[in-house]
Amino acid sequence: MISVDSLLYGIALAGVAVQASSGVLEAGRRPFDLFGMVVVALAAALGGGTLRDVMLDRKVFWIADQSYLTAAVLAGLATFALVRIRALPPKLFLLPDAVGLALFTVSGTQAALAMGAPWLVASLMGVITGVFGGILRDVLCNQIPLVFVGQLYATASWAGALLLVGLSLWGGVSPGWAALAGGSLVLTIRLCALAFDWRLPVFAVRS
Amino acid sequence: MISVDSLLYGIALAGVAVQASSGVLEAGRRPFDLFGMVVVALAAALGGGTLRDVMLDRKVFWIADQSYLTAAVLAGLATFALVRIRALPPKLFLLPDAVGLALFTVSGTQAALAMGAPWLVASLMGVITGVFGGILRDVLCNQIPLVFVGQLYATASWAGALLLVGLSLWGGVSPGWAALAGGSLVLTIRLCALAFDWRLPVFAVRS
Amino acid sequence: MISVDSLLYGIALAGVAVQASSGVLEAGRRPFDLFGMVVVALAAALGGGTLRDVMLDRKVFWIADQSYLTAAVLAGLATFALVRIRALPPKLFLLPDAVGLALFTVSGTQAALAMGAPWLVASLMGVITGVFGGILRDVLCNQIPLVFVGQLYATASWAGALLLVGLSLWGGVSPGWAALAGGSLVLTIRLCALAFDWRLPVFAVRS
Repeated sequence: MISVDSLLYGIALAGVAVQASSGVLEAGRRPFDLFGMVVVALAAALGGGTLRDVMLDRKVFWIADQSYLTAAVLAGLATFALVRIRALPPKLFLLPDAVGLALFTVSGTQAALAMGAPWLVASLMGVITGVFGGILRDVLCNQIPLVFVGQLYATASWAGALLLVGLSLWGGVSPGWAALAGGSLVLTIRLCALAFDWRLPVFAVRS
Repeated sequence: MISVDSLLYGIALAGVAVQASSGVLEAGRRPFDLFGMVVVALAAALGGGTLRDVMLDRKVFWIADQSYLTAAVLAGLATFALVRIRALPPKLFLLPDAVGLALFTVSGTQAALAMGAPWLVASLMGVITGVFGGILRDVLCNQIPLVFVGQLYATASWAGALLLVGLSLWGGVSPGWAALAGGSLVLTIRLCALAFDWRLPVFAVRS
Repeated sequence: MISVDSLLYGIALAGVAVQASSGVLEAGRRPFDLFGMVVVALAAALGGGTLRDVMLDRKVFWIADQSYLTAAVLAGLATFALVRIRALPPKLFLLPDAVGLALFTVSGTQAALAMGAPWLVASLMGVITGVFGGILRDVLCNQIPLVFVGQLYATASWAGALLLVGLSLWGGVSPGWAALAGGSLVLTIRLCALAFDWRLPVFAVRS
């Protein structure tokens, strides 16, 4: 039991680190200085969970446990150093980013369920935890959030969150298995979307 | 007494739905996918009330009562479907939007007064509840918030909030009548501003 | 003892007023109306402290004490009036702005320490309090946050916050002297950065 918790905690730290790296890479397209990098990295890594905790009136996770903040800062600085040495292939980050999305979705959904939130709220909280950091990153860089225009991302998150909620509330499945099923669905849809370029229909009133 | 509460509740749901529609229409000018639409719709519909509740340390209204979230999602999807069929006249939304502004202003102001907030804070909380959703919608769409540049909108909200606060704190008027007076003032100013193109002076340091 | 508290309170109000002025000056480059000015002024003046209080689950400072809100609104309106009469030299605001940065940093760091936050979290909370208002101001004006691209600003804040935390947690220094030392370091670094054009290295992956 303890080893499963340790594993989940390790994956959570890795998810935070990967999102921090994505923030540095995105900010690197702009003439930001080192501090700007760090801010965008922290916003990308911690923004979703912070919004979730503030809205659910829980203690903010990175204030309660400093490890998340340390992981985000170190990952941001390491990415900054690495990219000055040599260009990284952007696709390098897609797999761990998908793992991070799955994990953030699961943790957000479960936190809301634990507080007795109804099904639609709980699933939305999972999506917010998963994608808000990336939206914040792009708003700070003054561009349209990537999550609104790319391959399936939030949709993958929502599908997995709904599965988790359904299994927990009506399926009588234990939290651990529900989390595993929901997280796996997020990961599968996201990876398929990347592999086969799955997208939602684009909507435009005016050209 | 119950019927008045039911009426207010129904108008609140309608206000949320209308703001969600405005989010979809605004996002539709950008190459957003279906999920992007939904996020902007939710931000426009729920953003103001969420900020109010978080700052007042109340339970977030759409987490406590899922109906608001359902109304926003359904209205967003319906607008999405409708606009793909035929273009809607933008002015169609101006009347219910004005009703929504009046109602959000009243609910925000009263929530702050109920917590013992002083008069300036209470009135500002009403304005934030009324207009923050629209600001968030425009920031997500990467453009200057419309509320800063159009006909009187926040000014209408502030005037009504101040009237409500004044009647409640110093006029000895009951909450129901104060709400009615404040809300009516918001609605009247906003509709007159639209009809007669009332605007605040524009300010520019540099051309 | 009382006179020191009064002095700090006065400086805090002055810091809020100066940040409100900076918001009006920034918004004045855009075709905003009077209300847009006021919103940007309030966001610049109150944004950092609000985010700090919400994340630490404290009562929001300007809701608890209306004086801050009054100071921000009055300073914003006064700046609006002044600039319509004659152009102000932008450098006029740099000295009081640096004082405000120092004070916001100290107050944010001390609030986090008082709640038992660990060192890295406490110092970051000081930085957030100091710089978030300016970031919000620039996002609302739809441009890249100045704090990410100019002379040392957040770095000055972070250095002072770390000194304050170090002296308090490990130096056995009383809160008053630690605050004085930390605040002075922020002010010194910021003024030197302006005088000698100190900047962090800029990072760009792609040209």
